[in-house]
Amino acid sequence: MLDRKATMDFQLCLPAWLREALSDRQPLATPEARAGYAVGLARRNVSEGTGGPFGAAVFEQQSGRLISAGVNRVVPARCSVAHAEIVALCLAQQALQTHDLGAEGIPPCELVCSTEPCAMCLGAIPWSGVRRLVCAARDEDARRIGFDEGDKPADWVSALERRGIAVLRDVCRDEAVAVLEAYRRAGGPIYNARPDRRP
Amino acid sequence: MLDRKATMDFQLCLPAWLREALSDRQPLATPEARAGYAVGLARRNVSEGTGGPFGAAVFEQQSGRLISAGVNRVVPARCSVAHAEIVALCLAQQALQTHDLGAEGIPPCELVCSTEPCAMCLGAIPWSGVRRLVCAARDEDARRIGFDEGDKPADWVSALERRGIAVLRDVCRDEAVAVLEAYRRAGGPIYNARPDRRP
Repeated sequence: MLDRKATMDFQLCLPAWLREALSDRQPLATPEARAGYAVGLARRNVSEGTGGPFGAAVFEQQSGRLISAGVNRVVPARCSVAHAEIVALCLAQQALQTHDLGAEGIPPCELVCSTEPCAMCLGAIPWSGVRRLVCAARDEDARRIGFDEGDKPADWVSALERRGIAVLRDVCRDEAVAVLEAYRRAGGPIYNARPDRRP
Repeated sequence: MLDRKATMDFQLCLPAWLREALSDRQPLATPEARAGYAVGLARRNVSEGTGGPFGAAVFEQQSGRLISAGVNRVVPARCSVAHAEIVALCLAQQALQTHDLGAEGIPPCELVCSTEPCAMCLGAIPWSGVRRLVCAARDEDARRIGFDEGDKPADWVSALERRGIAVLRDVCRDEAVAVLEAYRRAGGPIYNARPDRRP
């Protein structure tokens, strides 16, 4: 039997601690401050037990104003799509009431993430309209603790740049790697991969 | 100012016509019947004015029972992530209450879509747990009417197959292409691409 209610709506919610933490944010001027913020979200998402070790945020590129924040919600939300980047992008588009953060009249936006995007999130970035991607940990750092990042084009950085999306890597990488390593040591679930069906 | 409400929740809803159409579905036995169903969703999404010309559904592979249906909601939902495939996968996972449709105890599921997935949706497929992908139109059919499918690996079919996900292509392709062509002729918005920033 088709469960009518369950199959017709899906609500993506931030955990309570993040809802509270979002009030009264001051603008963050530098890429380092913004990446540190995303890494802090990843760290707290683990310590609060509200999802995997990944955080992301959308900022106005010039002012550093926070538009939205996201954390990984895959297991608690029962949604394989609920990576931190996807959550942050969806919420930024809701905040600005447009599917295109690069639309005319909207100040340039950037996506800041605690780890480089997986294949899905990478594919989502050009559609979102963000003009810059700022990353802390490398995708190989996530792979090292067991997460599968998917089949990304080898030249994904230049592929984004060809689309007019600048990429800044390794911003607060050590701090981000420490969060990933702590997650692995604590035995946190590696939800993404299907180890039996890894290529 | 950060709009607290808008940036903390995101609800994905099916259009009213699809909510009604979902009641009392009979199982669909063949890939052709299932692909025809996804193409029908795409066609009706256009005729009802509720989104782009794309439909998708998740079925139990053996029984043909419909688990969820999705249509493109990018512009009306103000969400660049709301491709038909993503909507169908999220709703299937809600219906079965798991982030992994390939988990033990769950009958094998398949994703059926009216057009081959873009780079984002392609990246989402391995994380979802579906065991088979059935596609109607080719991605070049979508590109031909102006949609950007993103930077997909050239060998994306074999990349999925290496992960244990079978791929069936060109099922009801002509019927699906007719929907895309009708959308173009009617001047429907091509929301995905940024023509000024195409590589």
